[in-house]
Amino acid sequence: MVAELISVGTELLMGNVVNTNVRYLAEKLSGLGYVIQYQVTVGDNAERLRAVVQEAWKRSDLVVLTGGLGPTEDDITKDVCAELLGMPLRLDEALRDWIEDYLKRSVYKCPSENNYRQAMIPEGAVQLKNENGTARGLVLEKDGRRMVLLPGPPNELQPMVEQELIPYLHAQQEDCLYSVMVKICGIGEAQIEDRLLDLIDAQTNPTIATYAKTGETHVRITAKASSAKEAAKLVKPVAKEIRKRFGSAVYSFDAGETLPMAVVKQLKKYDLTVTTAESITGGMIAAALTSVSGASSVFKEGFITYSNKAKRRTLSVKKDLIKRYGAVSAECAKDMAVGGVLASEADICIAVTGNAGPEAMEEKPVGLVYIGCYCRGKVVVESYQFNGNRDKIREQTVIKALDLLRRTILEKYGKD
Amino acid sequence: MVAELISVGTELLMGNVVNTNVRYLAEKLSGLGYVIQYQVTVGDNAERLRAVVQEAWKRSDLVVLTGGLGPTEDDITKDVCAELLGMPLRLDEALRDWIEDYLKRSVYKCPSENNYRQAMIPEGAVQLKNENGTARGLVLEKDGRRMVLLPGPPNELQPMVEQELIPYLHAQQEDCLYSVMVKICGIGEAQIEDRLLDLIDAQTNPTIATYAKTGETHVRITAKASSAKEAAKLVKPVAKEIRKRFGSAVYSFDAGETLPMAVVKQLKKYDLTVTTAESITGGMIAAALTSVSGASSVFKEGFITYSNKAKRRTLSVKKDLIKRYGAVSAECAKDMAVGGVLASEADICIAVTGNAGPEAMEEKPVGLVYIGCYCRGKVVVESYQFNGNRDKIREQTVIKALDLLRRTILEKYGKD
Repeated sequence: MVAELISVGTELLMGNVVNTNVRYLAEKLSGLGYVIQYQVTVGDNAERLRAVVQEAWKRSDLVVLTGGLGPTEDDITKDVCAELLGMPLRLDEALRDWIEDYLKRSVYKCPSENNYRQAMIPEGAVQLKNENGTARGLVLEKDGRRMVLLPGPPNELQPMVEQELIPYLHAQQEDCLYSVMVKICGIGEAQIEDRLLDLIDAQTNPTIATYAKTGETHVRITAKASSAKEAAKLVKPVAKEIRKRFGSAVYSFDAGETLPMAVVKQLKKYDLTVTTAESITGGMIAAALTSVSGASSVFKEGFITYSNKAKRRTLSVKKDLIKRYGAVSAECAKDMAVGGVLASEADICIAVTGNAGPEAMEEKPVGLVYIGCYCRGKVVVESYQFNGNRDKIREQTVIKALDLLRRTILEKYGKD
Repeated sequence: MVAELISVGTELLMGNVVNTNVRYLAEKLSGLGYVIQYQVTVGDNAERLRAVVQEAWKRSDLVVLTGGLGPTEDDITKDVCAELLGMPLRLDEALRDWIEDYLKRSVYKCPSENNYRQAMIPEGAVQLKNENGTARGLVLEKDGRRMVLLPGPPNELQPMVEQELIPYLHAQQEDCLYSVMVKICGIGEAQIEDRLLDLIDAQTNPTIATYAKTGETHVRITAKASSAKEAAKLVKPVAKEIRKRFGSAVYSFDAGETLPMAVVKQLKKYDLTVTTAESITGGMIAAALTSVSGASSVFKEGFITYSNKAKRRTLSVKKDLIKRYGAVSAECAKDMAVGGVLASEADICIAVTGNAGPEAMEEKPVGLVYIGCYCRGKVVVESYQFNGNRDKIREQTVIKALDLLRRTILEKYGKD
């Protein structure tokens, strides 16, 4: 099955925003067995959009459009596609009422006339629910081919794809596909690929694909068979072999499980509480942990000690220690980790200090980071020299901190 | 001048890597006044690549291709383009010697036979130097139009664009482009467009476009003229009019300035320090503030008080207050804001408490959020009922908290 992705939005053409949807959708659709031959981005221009959709419809079984489903005059995707397939727009009254109600409960309070445009639905279209906005997703079917219209904002698109589109497309398929995502932390993609080359070269079913993420690599194993059970049987030995090769660097086999989720699960399993003592990341590690639903049972409190004074007052870091070694030091990370546990009464503390740039400070280069983890009376400190800009350095620090936390728990409690 | 971007690479189609080149190039070319009408991604397949390039060459003045200039058999971009424009490949002997020398100094040591393919240059092509690899960039000119071939790796492409391509294209230009981005917080996109409809309908130069972001709307005003100064003159009255219509909801006119940046700038201006007392957002507000380079002069410390005990111990929220009103209450937000200032000695504290879901707690619905801001002896509390999932609720809370902080400072200090 050949698929094509069309992104709609002048802001994408102008480079105002990064198009993260394309990569996300490409990965998801590949996982469902679709072969993507073209990705096209076009602006909010009816004539050009029509030409692009027409061309895609000729050469692909599945055309997925993102963006241009908003309430404004710029938003033309639905109109263009509906017209092309000869499906006139009809007012969905129940949807109109729902939109009205949704907007009344939102920060914007009163719906404008424009919002009602979103209640116009092409005749015969399947609607995909949107839990984060007023634009419905749509599936238009004709002559055995499908056109899918999705909202542009990733926080609307992604839940819609997971909860609505994938189950829908799954139901259309004859072959059953089964995928496992082996999530690996702490080993680079090139190295992982090197160590999987024999498997990658040998396999046709299941197929193996690697995906590089910040600080992580995900390896997807996908098999096709007449039943999900059969497909799962093909995937299992390969997943086992990869697990064997990378050991405890593998943190999950579940595509939906993020590193923070894996850590929270682990903390719950051993009935532990954790606290955070953050300097360079300024709250990002705590934010990652609390992004997990139910984190409140393992995370009670966290500290952001950005200044030296805050490190001293809140975490009892010794003044002369900072004077001697600097705030960006293994010694300071260690004291912060101990201080975090004392201040919060948590079982474990993860502490980070470093220089995110843009300039060297205390003669410590940009990207130098120390991560300390207190657990069962001991503190482990790791140091890293990260590349990239401020955001990238902070992002990598979060991943490494969560991974150190994960490895520490595994080591100290995994054998209990 | 109409430009088109073509990205070549099967790994992009599969979603294995994010295509950062497209956004980078789009931004650079827009800045040079090119209007980009299409961006296309295609795999390492000669037939499909040829069709895509042919189509682009028909409809655009400038076609920029990225990727497929490497030494392997997969790399077909140069061959396809040279053939299409009827420019036979010739061996550039000086380039061959340079590649040989480059590889001998690199980790790969000895050049393989394949590497010499990179010394084959289409007759009449302009070469763009590459400081990080062996693939030269190429400009092919024909009938007053240009085709530019760039290497895929961003660390090769970006210096080549800055140092070679932009100066080359600059020399070809006539018109100048000038853009301003009016950033508005607290008013929905549909409502903003309603109130700008007369301007949007009336204008052709400058043009006006709105961009919806979480909790914010950005309005871009772009003008074209014979000089940047002339173009700026066309933009100015429109920007002023929009500022008049939305008043203090406008927080910036700079495309590069985020809401956290605007807040940090404001704090610096009035020589204020801020602290954060976060429950529902678990560190996200502090993370947003510290994402700004130089935030350390206004942000010293922040508190994440997720449990009731932490709220009491760290922020001195009264026990019977939580008992009577619950942790998700205006009263608690107020006490948290006061407690944050007492614990940190900052001038201002922004405090948030709410229910991010997935379930109602203390009989408070999912999405109910209270935001308190202490400033000059007074606390303002605002309440919101947000829609969406956990991430979306937390994200909206961060924006509203930063905006309350911004408005409070403006009100209390803006008139000083």
